[in-house]
Amino acid sequence: MRLTTTEFPCTDSDKHDVEGMNRGLLFRQLFEKTSSTYTYILGCQKTREAIIIDPVKETAPRDAKLLNELGLSLRWALNTHVHADHITGTGALKQLIPGVKSVISKAGGARADHLIEHGDVIQFGGEEIEVRATPGHTNSCVTYVHHGGRMAFTGDALLIRACGRTDFQEGCPQRLYKSVWEQILSLPEDYSIFVGHNYEGIEQTSVAEEKKFNPRLTKSEEEFVHIMKNLNLSYPKQIDRALPANLVDGELEEKHEAEAK
Amino acid sequence: MRLTTTEFPCTDSDKHDVEGMNRGLLFRQLFEKTSSTYTYILGCQKTREAIIIDPVKETAPRDAKLLNELGLSLRWALNTHVHADHITGTGALKQLIPGVKSVISKAGGARADHLIEHGDVIQFGGEEIEVRATPGHTNSCVTYVHHGGRMAFTGDALLIRACGRTDFQEGCPQRLYKSVWEQILSLPEDYSIFVGHNYEGIEQTSVAEEKKFNPRLTKSEEEFVHIMKNLNLSYPKQIDRALPANLVDGELEEKHEAEAK
Repeated sequence: MRLTTTEFPCTDSDKHDVEGMNRGLLFRQLFEKTSSTYTYILGCQKTREAIIIDPVKETAPRDAKLLNELGLSLRWALNTHVHADHITGTGALKQLIPGVKSVISKAGGARADHLIEHGDVIQFGGEEIEVRATPGHTNSCVTYVHHGGRMAFTGDALLIRACGRTDFQEGCPQRLYKSVWEQILSLPEDYSIFVGHNYEGIEQTSVAEEKKFNPRLTKSEEEFVHIMKNLNLSYPKQIDRALPANLVDGELEEKHEAEAK
Repeated sequence: MRLTTTEFPCTDSDKHDVEGMNRGLLFRQLFEKTSSTYTYILGCQKTREAIIIDPVKETAPRDAKLLNELGLSLRWALNTHVHADHITGTGALKQLIPGVKSVISKAGGARADHLIEHGDVIQFGGEEIEVRATPGHTNSCVTYVHHGGRMAFTGDALLIRACGRTDFQEGCPQRLYKSVWEQILSLPEDYSIFVGHNYEGIEQTSVAEEKKFNPRLTKSEEEFVHIMKNLNLSYPKQIDRALPANLVDGELEEKHEAEAK
């Protein structure tokens, strides 16, 4: 499937004529402190069409304001997976910016305007990202790859020197190991990796770095499974509030609040 | 003055042959949560020489580890000014990485290995940054400009949609207004601006954005002075601990701790 908008057709020659990391791409990373979540804005410099990856409900107004100031027209609000540690901002952004469509993997059983699967392409202006299924932390996990900017957005599948836990939702360490090696660390080594969370204030990594320094993924599959089964992590703080809401675009609380009135 | 290292001479033709935002430059932004401080690493991809801007004492071990993993050799540890809200990590990095030299503006009266002033150039491999004096928040405030990457590191002189307070240290709103307009917002509009702090999770801005949307600096000088004199901010939490330490490379506490033993 190819998600496109046709209002501003862009030719290939338009792609690389404006200043930026990738010359056709406007790129911004944002941070939500409570859940240490990273949100990403990617915009086509030429047409001003944009996508947002993993917005958080509480910071959706900040994101909407920044998109407006940057002169960007948000088309797609993407989740990398059904989050357990914060409520997605896709529903809130749909309310703040008319016409935005929410996107999540078909594999998670969640509601969204578009359900995507491995191999789909999401286009915004002259830019596009490829969807790669990377299950293992959850069934719904996908990695978004922007080949033009040599960047991958891995959500919680691969974290900086770490990876998403595999002890709840549909977690499976064997599946995660296969996903990360086959779909993420198989990318060229200079690709930048932008993750879903970091708790130490590190904002990005690369394929080369994680292939060298990831203390879990550099191990054999057997050792990896052993590590993941012995992490003894505490129950995620916001899971009971976040999971039901994230199955319906993060809109459950508003609905309950409205019904309570 | 030109701060240089001569071990790895780089020719101009070497500068733009490696992947990155600026092709010769390796760039990383880092975040310290308690004081919401941004730290920046800039490295020459070819020679692996690097600088760090505004490290924080508590996160210096993280920074040293990342520099090592990235294969970078840290030469200069730079402060944008004598900080009042956290202890600088320049002293800690000197202890962790032998040979590192600390750098701060001559105007602040602080101790460092190199005291810099307006117009100085700091070179690391084939890369260099220009020092611009931008006093007003403090006397010691400088902005570091990397013209190759079209980036400016403004410390607390210019913040995202804000600016540093002018009600303590040697704060002077008239001076700050002049500094920001003459030395920062006079740069080309596409220059990215990387600031000392942000409390909302926004990681960067640009000259164009601040010229349009900064609610203080877009006003007349008279209105700006009025705004700055009526902010009614609370006393900085860490100032009594931070200021004396930051006059001596952030090393005061270690000295006191050692003396107490």
